[in-house]
Amino acid sequence: MSEPLRFRVRVMRKAGLADPEGATTTKALRDLGYTEVAAVHFGRDIVVELQGDDAASAEARVHEMCERLLANPVIEDFTVERL
Amino acid sequence: MSEPLRFRVRVMRKAGLADPEGATTTKALRDLGYTEVAAVHFGRDIVVELQGDDAASAEARVHEMCERLLANPVIEDFTVERL
Repeated sequence: MSEPLRFRVRVMRKAGLADPEGATTTKALRDLGYTEVAAVHFGRDIVVELQGDDAASAEARVHEMCERLLANPVIEDFTVERL
Repeated sequence: MSEPLRFRVRVMRKAGLADPEGATTTKALRDLGYTEVAAVHFGRDIVVELQGDDAASAEARVHEMCERLLANPVIEDFTVERL
């Protein structure tokens, strides 16, 4: 069997939406003495490995997986990158 | 005030450790018909913005933030990249 194709999916909250995890972490870092921290933004980094030989069609399938399951298109943006 | 320095921190589980979120997602994708999915690995993608002019010392501080707060060095690895 050939090596699987690997893609990195990065899912982040759309700009302008509240990011409570980021806000909490910013405060925690400042409380630890890192007062130079201006902001922290959290996202998910997902690596998907799939069998297949056709990288272009695999990438299209990964986009579809993002829309259907991996991301919430209402509040999140995503990018897909071949590794 | 100058533009903040931005760094991307990627936190992932150390190789060989169980990744229940990845395993559950792999199964969910296969159940949706994406039977070519071999594995899914979840990590966190964190963007840290800080005030400062010295990128090298800012990057060293971000490494320290990872060790102290952003990652769990017992079970996770991390990388820091300037954006």
